[in-house]
Amino acid sequence: MSHLRFDQTTSDWVVFAPLRKLRPHHGTAQESTGQEATLESVVSCPFCPGNESLTPPEIYANRDDPTVESSWQVRVVSNKFPVLTIEETVQRSQDGKMFQKMGGCGAHEVVIESPEHGTFLGQLSLEHLETLLRVIRSRYLDLKQDRRFQSIIIFKNHGIGAGTSLQHPHWQIIATPVVPRLSRLKHLEATDYFDRTGNCLYSELLQAELTAEKRLVAVEDEFVAFIPYAAHLPFETWIIPRQQQGAFDLLKENQIRPLASMLKTVLLKLYVGLDNPDFNLTVEMAPRGDEKKDYFQWHIRILPRLTTRAGFEMGSGMSINTVLPEDAAEFLRAGETSLRSKA
Amino acid sequence: MSHLRFDQTTSDWVVFAPLRKLRPHHGTAQESTGQEATLESVVSCPFCPGNESLTPPEIYANRDDPTVESSWQVRVVSNKFPVLTIEETVQRSQDGKMFQKMGGCGAHEVVIESPEHGTFLGQLSLEHLETLLRVIRSRYLDLKQDRRFQSIIIFKNHGIGAGTSLQHPHWQIIATPVVPRLSRLKHLEATDYFDRTGNCLYSELLQAELTAEKRLVAVEDEFVAFIPYAAHLPFETWIIPRQQQGAFDLLKENQIRPLASMLKTVLLKLYVGLDNPDFNLTVEMAPRGDEKKDYFQWHIRILPRLTTRAGFEMGSGMSINTVLPEDAAEFLRAGETSLRSKA
Repeated sequence: MSHLRFDQTTSDWVVFAPLRKLRPHHGTAQESTGQEATLESVVSCPFCPGNESLTPPEIYANRDDPTVESSWQVRVVSNKFPVLTIEETVQRSQDGKMFQKMGGCGAHEVVIESPEHGTFLGQLSLEHLETLLRVIRSRYLDLKQDRRFQSIIIFKNHGIGAGTSLQHPHWQIIATPVVPRLSRLKHLEATDYFDRTGNCLYSELLQAELTAEKRLVAVEDEFVAFIPYAAHLPFETWIIPRQQQGAFDLLKENQIRPLASMLKTVLLKLYVGLDNPDFNLTVEMAPRGDEKKDYFQWHIRILPRLTTRAGFEMGSGMSINTVLPEDAAEFLRAGETSLRSKA
Repeated sequence: MSHLRFDQTTSDWVVFAPLRKLRPHHGTAQESTGQEATLESVVSCPFCPGNESLTPPEIYANRDDPTVESSWQVRVVSNKFPVLTIEETVQRSQDGKMFQKMGGCGAHEVVIESPEHGTFLGQLSLEHLETLLRVIRSRYLDLKQDRRFQSIIIFKNHGIGAGTSLQHPHWQIIATPVVPRLSRLKHLEATDYFDRTGNCLYSELLQAELTAEKRLVAVEDEFVAFIPYAAHLPFETWIIPRQQQGAFDLLKENQIRPLASMLKTVLLKLYVGLDNPDFNLTVEMAPRGDEKKDYFQWHIRILPRLTTRAGFEMGSGMSINTVLPEDAAEFLRAGETSLRSKA
């Protein structure tokens, strides 16, 4: 069904996931992750407890009572409309003289955050957030075992403007059979910096932000949250470990609670300060196999969707940011971190 | 006011254009070109004839009667909230050990397509489209005279979902003091292809699309419209000259009418077939100074905004396209090119 095609003008691989439901004359549906375009009601929500039969086969669930199907706290299922599937091959072939394609081999999983349909990620208890992070880490580690997967993208979409389609809060994990060009670029920049200076670019940026202070959002023992100097989007916020660590799976047991805590702090600041903005969350990591090298530092990027990419951005690839990182960080630092302030 | 900051992790320059009106706590405005976020009424529209005093100073206008201010057919003004301005310098400076910035030198012009507030670009007469294309070309040529401008981006946003803010149809031209990384990448890919094969990558792609036939949208003597094999977006359509030509300003006099005609054909197919979709239009060109070299072929890209970039795309930089180019092209080929079919 799905396959990838190579764009020779940019060296990008583009994923083609034609959906039965999205025919050309229905092309206006908001559709990027392969799920229904309309927000479902709670009753029919396939991610709510009791509706387990509405999802594709379960990959993982942690249940309070193993004999009660609906007693899970975090549940992982295959995406109903997967972008890439494990059944496809990675075989490449020419498609005419100038064109190259390959099979849509990969994985597309959904991590249902909690049984709660209407509870925002930042509202979950620290214990629950810890459990969620452990599940995501274990799914990541499991997917890494398949040598056909060159890259594993962990992300979350919150709100229709961020491309979500099912309201019940969830993360997604997509494994791709190619390394994205953007990953190669970041790898090149980071290794080049390392070769020139002997230091990790991300560690140095973190130290510089700690010194400058004005773009810091929250500082804790294990993690720091800041708005980067050259943020591409208003209120783009990074959460980064203080100690150099190439990939998310190297997260130590005693760092999981601090990460849950920092995630909660930052998400609530954004929720309260910007009135529950649509956002994407992505986890940036060193390429597979380079996790233990010194040149990269994994981090979470939270990308509020407050602006629309328009023709300038599409044509040039450049970003226009209308809010200075210093102003955004000051605003978030001063903001409440409790939902009670909204009442 | 505005400035650019260098992102060391990707080698992108990010434009910072903080607006007086967009304060952090008003961060939810849809805002990427620096104009009001709400669609204005016709009465107060600064781009309608009779309201010339509501715009920044006029850069160019072709008037039927030079003594009647409102008798223009196409009018060019500075953007009221410019992203970059001619008054700023290109001076670079360190901003702390790890951070580099430069002045927001550039230009940001608005080309008002016609006096008609509610007339779609594809509905304009061929004569008027010709005039419009001539004006855009002349503004491009004029901006190229300023040696501080490294790149000139010509684009149009149609519809709120494509980032437009003023309904009265217009194009925009932004001159930047740096070459966008994406331009450098395309230059690298195209020159590499040229060095390896002796041929222009874009000419070869065009020939391959002409041979394959199935992704063609419209074929005329001077220009071809097709949906590229590895289109990043559903219904992404290119208009490209048959003869190799590096940049838009090399367009010959006798090619302007055929370009107007092809633009009209394609825009009406999209308008009718997809029910007036939001879209961006960009003009892709060889870098300044390379216009007459053989490795690039300028083209127009029309990018319908039918889908939302979500976390996967933001994290990986890859695109997911849910409509096969062959299906989209067949749909457009079969479609009407006249608005009468809508009545």
